[in-house]
Amino acid sequence: MIISMKLHSTKEEIEQVCERIRDFGYKIHAIEGEERVVIAAVGIGDTTVCLEAVEAMPQVEKAVRISAPYKFVSKEYRTERTRIRVDDCEIGGDEFIVMAGPCSVESEKQIMQAAEGVARAGAKLLRGGAFKPRTSPYDFQGLGVEALRILSRVRRETGLPIVSEVLSTDDVEIVAEHVDMLQVGARNMQNFALLRRLGLLRKPVLLKRSPAATVREWLLAAEYLLAGGNNQVVLCERGIRSYDPDLRNTLDLAGMALARQLSHLPVIADPSHATGRRDLIPAMCRAALAAGADGLIVEVHPDPANAISDGKQSLDFPSFAHMMETMRN
Amino acid sequence: MIISMKLHSTKEEIEQVCERIRDFGYKIHAIEGEERVVIAAVGIGDTTVCLEAVEAMPQVEKAVRISAPYKFVSKEYRTERTRIRVDDCEIGGDEFIVMAGPCSVESEKQIMQAAEGVARAGAKLLRGGAFKPRTSPYDFQGLGVEALRILSRVRRETGLPIVSEVLSTDDVEIVAEHVDMLQVGARNMQNFALLRRLGLLRKPVLLKRSPAATVREWLLAAEYLLAGGNNQVVLCERGIRSYDPDLRNTLDLAGMALARQLSHLPVIADPSHATGRRDLIPAMCRAALAAGADGLIVEVHPDPANAISDGKQSLDFPSFAHMMETMRN
Amino acid sequence: MIISMKLHSTKEEIEQVCERIRDFGYKIHAIEGEERVVIAAVGIGDTTVCLEAVEAMPQVEKAVRISAPYKFVSKEYRTERTRIRVDDCEIGGDEFIVMAGPCSVESEKQIMQAAEGVARAGAKLLRGGAFKPRTSPYDFQGLGVEALRILSRVRRETGLPIVSEVLSTDDVEIVAEHVDMLQVGARNMQNFALLRRLGLLRKPVLLKRSPAATVREWLLAAEYLLAGGNNQVVLCERGIRSYDPDLRNTLDLAGMALARQLSHLPVIADPSHATGRRDLIPAMCRAALAAGADGLIVEVHPDPANAISDGKQSLDFPSFAHMMETMRN
Amino acid sequence: MIISMKLHSTKEEIEQVCERIRDFGYKIHAIEGEERVVIAAVGIGDTTVCLEAVEAMPQVEKAVRISAPYKFVSKEYRTERTRIRVDDCEIGGDEFIVMAGPCSVESEKQIMQAAEGVARAGAKLLRGGAFKPRTSPYDFQGLGVEALRILSRVRRETGLPIVSEVLSTDDVEIVAEHVDMLQVGARNMQNFALLRRLGLLRKPVLLKRSPAATVREWLLAAEYLLAGGNNQVVLCERGIRSYDPDLRNTLDLAGMALARQLSHLPVIADPSHATGRRDLIPAMCRAALAAGADGLIVEVHPDPANAISDGKQSLDFPSFAHMMETMRN
Repeated sequence: MIISMKLHSTKEEIEQVCERIRDFGYKIHAIEGEERVVIAAVGIGDTTVCLEAVEAMPQVEKAVRISAPYKFVSKEYRTERTRIRVDDCEIGGDEFIVMAGPCSVESEKQIMQAAEGVARAGAKLLRGGAFKPRTSPYDFQGLGVEALRILSRVRRETGLPIVSEVLSTDDVEIVAEHVDMLQVGARNMQNFALLRRLGLLRKPVLLKRSPAATVREWLLAAEYLLAGGNNQVVLCERGIRSYDPDLRNTLDLAGMALARQLSHLPVIADPSHATGRRDLIPAMCRAALAAGADGLIVEVHPDPANAISDGKQSLDFPSFAHMMETMRN
Repeated sequence: MIISMKLHSTKEEIEQVCERIRDFGYKIHAIEGEERVVIAAVGIGDTTVCLEAVEAMPQVEKAVRISAPYKFVSKEYRTERTRIRVDDCEIGGDEFIVMAGPCSVESEKQIMQAAEGVARAGAKLLRGGAFKPRTSPYDFQGLGVEALRILSRVRRETGLPIVSEVLSTDDVEIVAEHVDMLQVGARNMQNFALLRRLGLLRKPVLLKRSPAATVREWLLAAEYLLAGGNNQVVLCERGIRSYDPDLRNTLDLAGMALARQLSHLPVIADPSHATGRRDLIPAMCRAALAAGADGLIVEVHPDPANAISDGKQSLDFPSFAHMMETMRN
Repeated sequence: MIISMKLHSTKEEIEQVCERIRDFGYKIHAIEGEERVVIAAVGIGDTTVCLEAVEAMPQVEKAVRISAPYKFVSKEYRTERTRIRVDDCEIGGDEFIVMAGPCSVESEKQIMQAAEGVARAGAKLLRGGAFKPRTSPYDFQGLGVEALRILSRVRRETGLPIVSEVLSTDDVEIVAEHVDMLQVGARNMQNFALLRRLGLLRKPVLLKRSPAATVREWLLAAEYLLAGGNNQVVLCERGIRSYDPDLRNTLDLAGMALARQLSHLPVIADPSHATGRRDLIPAMCRAALAAGADGLIVEVHPDPANAISDGKQSLDFPSFAHMMETMRN
Repeated sequence: MIISMKLHSTKEEIEQVCERIRDFGYKIHAIEGEERVVIAAVGIGDTTVCLEAVEAMPQVEKAVRISAPYKFVSKEYRTERTRIRVDDCEIGGDEFIVMAGPCSVESEKQIMQAAEGVARAGAKLLRGGAFKPRTSPYDFQGLGVEALRILSRVRRETGLPIVSEVLSTDDVEIVAEHVDMLQVGARNMQNFALLRRLGLLRKPVLLKRSPAATVREWLLAAEYLLAGGNNQVVLCERGIRSYDPDLRNTLDLAGMALARQLSHLPVIADPSHATGRRDLIPAMCRAALAAGADGLIVEVHPDPANAISDGKQSLDFPSFAHMMETMRN
């Protein structure tokens, strides 16, 4: 920690601050600058608490932490890249993994068609929403448990592992029973009760970045899972909130690359939610691959114009197949 | 709904789109412009679903809704302003209501002192966190149920009604048992499972705006509560995410005023979380009052320099009392 | 400056960095933490250049400046608040100063009516655009020099001092000849050629904050003026860019208050451009006053529905007069 | 234009609005919805002015334009992609063009070395700042005219065409004399006086996107140049302002792709300024290529650790050469 004192602090005030930091078990180096005194605190302790305490003291101008606030997710903790096995498929390994499927499970027929269509084009996992987080209470909220049962049957028939979102601690058990990978949606990235529950699970989790989260906050959300004992975490960048009304969100590929640099966890991108525009998705899929992503999650629907949700940003089979083709070259 | 077709759409393509809209029960007016055709759809139907369906059609450039997506929260639905009674105190009425107290319940002594200090200065509700949402799993997470019991005792002794955050559907019952008003924190504004559970409650809810939510999304989150049957909702603006590292968030008083204009619900401001800087809080409290807020929620601690959390943005008793004084003039 | 080295830096690498910093004339304190080495550099030197040089070294993790990057604008440099005299009127003194008038000068009749209307209600300066910065080349760009002549005549007849925008170094002379205070618009806040030219002037400048500027960048833009020798600078907050399409910008009153706390210069607010909605302007004017602003600049038009520009966010005389009335109480 | 009236508007109020729109030469279609009346206006007229006028009327809820506000830059105006010739090199053609070089011209030796280094690795243009826009007046502002003369000599000796920034209308002539392509920096994207002057030139212009500009505003800035008669415009995405302090800006590749889709102009990316971190630049260069960019502009310095400016985000020769190599595969 580096603590800079206010201008014109007295010796006594400085000593008070040093005293307080020492109470937390740190060693102190006070450095007198031309303008102000700066205090460096070194040691191992509860940095966050100490930081908060010191910042609250009236003589302190600013307190900054030097070390990263997370531990288990960091590349310093584990230098080898983590590979997550979902059934036959390995995320974070040598292969670039594409997960695809419709926004919501609408019917057995629709999801079965989707599974076949995306598998044919090279997707390795099937996505499909059973519980849908919707901005309005009047929008379609998903088929719920019925959708989970449909997904189970589709997996049995096609062999495709399933990724699907869990919205609440109440549903963790039932979702975990039916799917291979549980998705935490962007709106729930800081639903800490949910993260803690998923930390106790021994199943892969796909953790989406909140549209207003820094890379650091995203990694700290993942830290909740690893600290709870679940190491099978895949990070997913899906666009951050920005000001241009012509794009749904801003796909932050540099943030994705930074997360992959700071952490050993696999990182994938979701260009469908990031752009909200079908015509930009293929280019952004290729860009994510080029930026070092370990994979993608893409919305694909057998008949986008008749999709119940997200049709605007869903690819149909021919454009998905074409996109996959261009990525192989 | 207004649907604008792509340039050079054929008659057939236009008819296809019209057909689709009519299926949803709307009447159609197609208007031929110099450049493109625009279709106006009027009627009562499932606008969101229709909008999504139409936007997914390849010939459609853009589809825009005209009517507001929420209903029960809107001023058109209820022209009179809603007043929420919490014990003796009325929010949204003639009086400007200040809720105050520490970030977290740390001990019975601390919270009792806080209660006395803030009541003396004119606060009408006591705030205090039992369950704390923390960015890092290593930060203090609150005393939990023990804190709720402490809060109950403090209420009995001081008569001050209590507002405290609920983080999870699992805790709704126990929190509702001990406190007078349940707070939904900014990170949970779109935790729809939690909103639905609270919609079934018959207790006041304080709904904080997410730092990345538009006013419309905030009102839609409130709509979840009202649609569920709980009309006792107070909105709280607590700053939106912005780019200046010298401020924690950006207090959006115009957004607060807009919410108050679009809805009949009471709206308060939280300058402590919005600014994160003790020295700016009094000015922002006065500004919120001037901007038409129905009240405030402010962090006050008996000894900010020794607070376990948020000390940096907590007022001590003298500055809180002074601030309250300046607001009365 | 505080420089934190990368993890596992060698002694040699640390010495190289220390060496480099010493070259810039600083004294070095190297502090060995548990995890990494941190170097504190004290002294007076070209901090920015040194900071850039050090950050570019591969062993360095991060370099952070402690002292403020500006000098003449800071409250440490001048503890007394600056008062700017524009004709009879003093900005930054005891009186809250309101500048008002139309977005653009449209005709002598229009601006004369505006002048009389706003003066009657208590405005002390007249605003009116001669050169208009417009997002599209096809929008009305202002009457230019003709407008300046009209403004001169209006000042002679009404005695109201004039504030008007200058867009280019080419126009500084002619604008300075006709108006009492030159406005630098938000889009030109970092037009450094223009700032340098205005630094040579001995006339008051109204410096608007760019919608994407931090408070620090805003103060540095003002520093260009003061460093050039022009101390007559008034800062103006006019809203920052945010993500909610229902508001034109986000009025950042806490940023305004922070600027006023860090600097001795007067600071005013512009709720018209910040909100873009006539119905929110009066509340935001009152909020700015409560937040400690030294004044306001407000768009007022004799006939908003027939204004050539910004009619949507212009008040008419009765609402302006009413708003001024409410601010006196 | 689509104009939606406020709820409960009277027949008279609607007629007033229709009347006003007809005055601007449009035809009117009024559509009575269940909730409110919507007016569609078709025809060719001064849409912006009409839009502003109508929005200012008190009975109007909202007015939205349907047609794009720009003309010459749009793909509808010119369906073929534009190719810009700079000396021997063609931007927007079949070849992916990389411009590279140091942030600032520091000396003839440095820039000559840089030219040779980047040309060897495959760069086709040399970048180098003569006039530098700097946030602080105390930072290095560039060598100015001396730098231009150096650049001229380097071009003569190496044959590499030069791109360099122009900050002010005052310098347009001298910069145009010495360089092959004039850059408009991000801070000047809406310096309309400068854009108008460059519109009269017959030399290529590199127009950077402002960190707070929408794609639409960026295209409108380009429209100033084309409307002035200069069709040789290359657009450059260099990151937008966002909230994560660990990244300088957010590289908006989807915005870049959208600009390229809406316009016939070539579009390149600047990952150096966008990320501000050397370690992310190569990945972002590859991502830009994959996203469809016509080229790149990259900061490369013979000795980044001793660069006067931007060393932190400059590549050295080996990493630049390596990056170029990976892009060829």
